Amino acid sequence: MIDPVALTADLVRCPSVTPAEGGALVLLEKMLTKAGFACTRVDRNGTANLFARWGAKGHARSFGFNGHTDVVPIGVRSDWTRDPFGGELAEGRVWGRGACDMKSGVAAFVAAAVDFVQATPPEGAIILAITGDEEGPAQDGTVALLDWMATEGEAMSVCLVGEPTCPERMGEMMKIGRRGSMNATITARGRQGHAAYPHRAANPLPVLVGLLDRLARHELDQGTDHFDPSTLALTTVDVGNDATNVIPATARAGLNIRFNDLHSGQSLSDWLHALAAEESAGTGVALELAIRVSGEAFLTPPGPLSELVARAVQAECGVVPVLSTSGGTSDARFVKNHCPVVEFGLVGQSMHQVDEFAEIAHIEQLKRVYSRVLQDYFAGC
Amino acid sequence: MIDPVALTADLVRCPSVTPAEGGALVLLEKMLTKAGFACTRVDRNGTANLFARWGAKGHARSFGFNGHTDVVPIGVRSDWTRDPFGGELAEGRVWGRGACDMKSGVAAFVAAAVDFVQATPPEGAIILAITGDEEGPAQDGTVALLDWMATEGEAMSVCLVGEPTCPERMGEMMKIGRRGSMNATITARGRQGHAAYPHRAANPLPVLVGLLDRLARHELDQGTDHFDPSTLALTTVDVGNDATNVIPATARAGLNIRFNDLHSGQSLSDWLHALAAEESAGTGVALELAIRVSGEAFLTPPGPLSELVARAVQAECGVVPVLSTSGGTSDARFVKNHCPVVEFGLVGQSMHQVDEFAEIAHIEQLKRVYSRVLQDYFAGC
Ligand SMILES: [Zn+2]
Ligand SMILES: [Zn+2]
Repeated sequence: MIDPVALTADLVRCPSVTPAEGGALVLLEKMLTKAGFACTRVDRNGTANLFARWGAKGHARSFGFNGHTDVVPIGVRSDWTRDPFGGELAEGRVWGRGACDMKSGVAAFVAAAVDFVQATPPEGAIILAITGDEEGPAQDGTVALLDWMATEGEAMSVCLVGEPTCPERMGEMMKIGRRGSMNATITARGRQGHAAYPHRAANPLPVLVGLLDRLARHELDQGTDHFDPSTLALTTVDVGNDATNVIPATARAGLNIRFNDLHSGQSLSDWLHALAAEESAGTGVALELAIRVSGEAFLTPPGPLSELVARAVQAECGVVPVLSTSGGTSDARFVKNHCPVVEFGLVGQSMHQVDEFAEIAHIEQLKRVYSRVLQDYFAGC
Repeated sequence: MIDPVALTADLVRCPSVTPAEGGALVLLEKMLTKAGFACTRVDRNGTANLFARWGAKGHARSFGFNGHTDVVPIGVRSDWTRDPFGGELAEGRVWGRGACDMKSGVAAFVAAAVDFVQATPPEGAIILAITGDEEGPAQDGTVALLDWMATEGEAMSVCLVGEPTCPERMGEMMKIGRRGSMNATITARGRQGHAAYPHRAANPLPVLVGLLDRLARHELDQGTDHFDPSTLALTTVDVGNDATNVIPATARAGLNIRFNDLHSGQSLSDWLHALAAEESAGTGVALELAIRVSGEAFLTPPGPLSELVARAVQAECGVVPVLSTSGGTSDARFVKNHCPVVEFGLVGQSMHQVDEFAEIAHIEQLKRVYSRVLQDYFAGC
C-alpha cells in the first residue's frame, strides 16, 4: 500500500518549478517501474514528461490519469511561514509549493493505480500521463505526451485529470469541460495631427472607442445547458500620448473572451473582424487585429465517465459533485481531442498562494475516490 | 527712420529662448528711451517684460501694440542650414529663430511707432507692451504687463498684436478672436479582477469607453458667425495592463476641446460632469474629471478696430484680409480682458520650424501697415 500523503511530501521536496524536473518524475518512474508499469520519459525541448502503462498496449479498455508535477514559482521566500520545498506535515496538512496543485493529485492517482493493479490486476490497462509543464507554456507537456502516444499506438479510452476542482468543500465539484479563451489586440492606425484641427488628422481613438463600446455592450449569449454565458472583458487601452494638443497616430486595445460551446475561436475571430471592418469603414483609420486562441471550448457531455466519477465521489465524500465547466484552463483542453475527459481533485483554495497546503484527510479521501473509480471502471467489463 | 529689417536681424542675434531675455528687451528699451518713450521693465518671477509709452499716461486715445521677443528652442542644431541666431540676410529673407515669430513683428511696430511719433507727434499715446514669455507658460508675461498697467493706471484704448496671421500670402488674414481651449483628464476607478469572471470585478474600461464614445460622437455646434464649429479630440487613453487575464482597476483618458463663443469653460465642464455622472451611475466605477481651461473663447466683433486695420492692410498689401478666429492661442486672450484687440502680422509658415525666416519685403510691408494704422487711428481724433 502506497501512502499518498508521504508521496505528496516526497514530491513537494522536489523543487520542480516549471520547467525544472526537480527529481519528481525520476522518483515516480522508479516507483512505477517497480510496480510493473512500463515507463517512458517523453521529453521534448527541455520539458520532462513521464508516460507509464500497466497492462497491454492498445487495450480497448484503458483508463487514463493525467496530471503535472511542475509548480509555479514561490514568489517572495520571506512571505512563506513554511519551507516551500520542505514537504512539512503539520496541523493535519502537507505544506509547500505544489502540495495542492497538484503533487497531491498525482500522488493520489499513482498510489491508487499501484495498489489497484497489485491487489486486483484488471482486464485492461491503466495509463498515467504525467507532465512537467502544465504551469508554463504547456507546448511540450501533455501535448508532447499525446503526440508521442499517437505515434506509438498508445491510447486512453477515457481520462481523469487530477487537478484541484473543489472551490471550498471536498467533493463538491468536478469539471466536464471548460470555456474557451481568446485574446485579441486591436491596433488602430490613423494620422497624427494638431488637436485644434481634428478634421486634418485621422484620430484612431474615436474609431477604436466606437468598436470597444460596441464590443463591451454586446451580449455574446445567455449560457447553455452546461456553460455559463460567454464573457468579453476589455483589459487595456494604451496610447501613451502626453501632449494634450496632439492627436495620436496609433492606439491599442486588448480584450479577453471566455466563450462557451456556442462559439469557436474561428467564429469569434470572424465576428471581431467583421465589426472592425464596419467601424473603420470610411474613417481613414485602419483597425488591425491580432488574435490568439489559447483554448477552444470543450465539453465531455454528462454520461458514463462523469457518472462513474460522480458515483465514486459521492460514495467517498458524501456529496454529489456539481458538473462544472467553470475556471481557468487545464491540460484537459488537450486530452479532450483524444478521449472523453473529466477532472476531479482537491479543494484548490491555496493553489498558487504562499503557504500552499493540502489537507491530509483530503489526500487520503482523494486516493479512495480514484481507487473506487478504477474498481468500478474495470468491474464494468 | 528705423529699418525694421536690420532691427529684426539684430533681435534674432539675441538668443532669447524662453525664458531668456537674451538682450532683446535691453536693445529695444535703449532704442525706445532714446526716441522719447517712457520705458519700464516689468519683470516678474524671472520673466522679463518691457512696457513703453509715448505720450501722456492715461490718455483716452492710447493705441497699443503687443508682441513677444522670446522664441521657441531651435531643436537639433544640425538640422539648420543657417545659424539660428545669426540674423543672416540672404535670398531676400532674414533667417533665424524668431525671424517670423515674431521678432519681425516687434521690429515692425517699434519702427513704425518711433518713426510716427518723431514725424507727426500725435494727440494721444502709443503703448508698446512687449513680453519675454509668450512661448512658455505665459503666466508672467503679458499677464504681468497688464497687471502692472492696471496698478499704475496705464491703459490701452485698443490693441494690435503683431503675431504672424497670414497662412500663405501677405495680408490675406487677420484675427479678431480665438476659440477657447480646454483639456480634460478622465480617470475611471473600478475594481480589479480576473478576466474570466468580469461580474466579480468592476471594469473601468467599458464605462470609460462608453463615455468617450458619446463624447466623440457629439456635435458641439455647427459654428457661429465668426467661429468654426467647436471640436473635441480624444488625445489619449491609458491603462498599462500587460496581463491579458486581468481586468484593471484604473483607466485614464485625455481630451482637448476647442470651443467657440457658444460655450465657456464652465458650461463645458458642467456638461462633461453631467455625462460622466450618467455613464457611471450604477456601474461601480467612479469617473473623476480634472479640467484645465487654458483660454476662453473671445471675439472682438468686427467694428472700428478691425476696420481700421483691414483698411491699412488693403492699402499696403492689396488684399482684403479675412477676419478669422482660427489658430492656436496668443496673448490676445489676455489683452481682450482690457480692451478691443485684433492681430495682424506676417505669413507664419516657417514659425517654430528649422530655417525659420521672414521675407524682407514682407517686413517692410508690415511696417507700412502699422504706420498707416497709427496715422489713421490718430487722424480720426
Ligand atoms: Zn494544476
Ligand atoms: Zn508668437
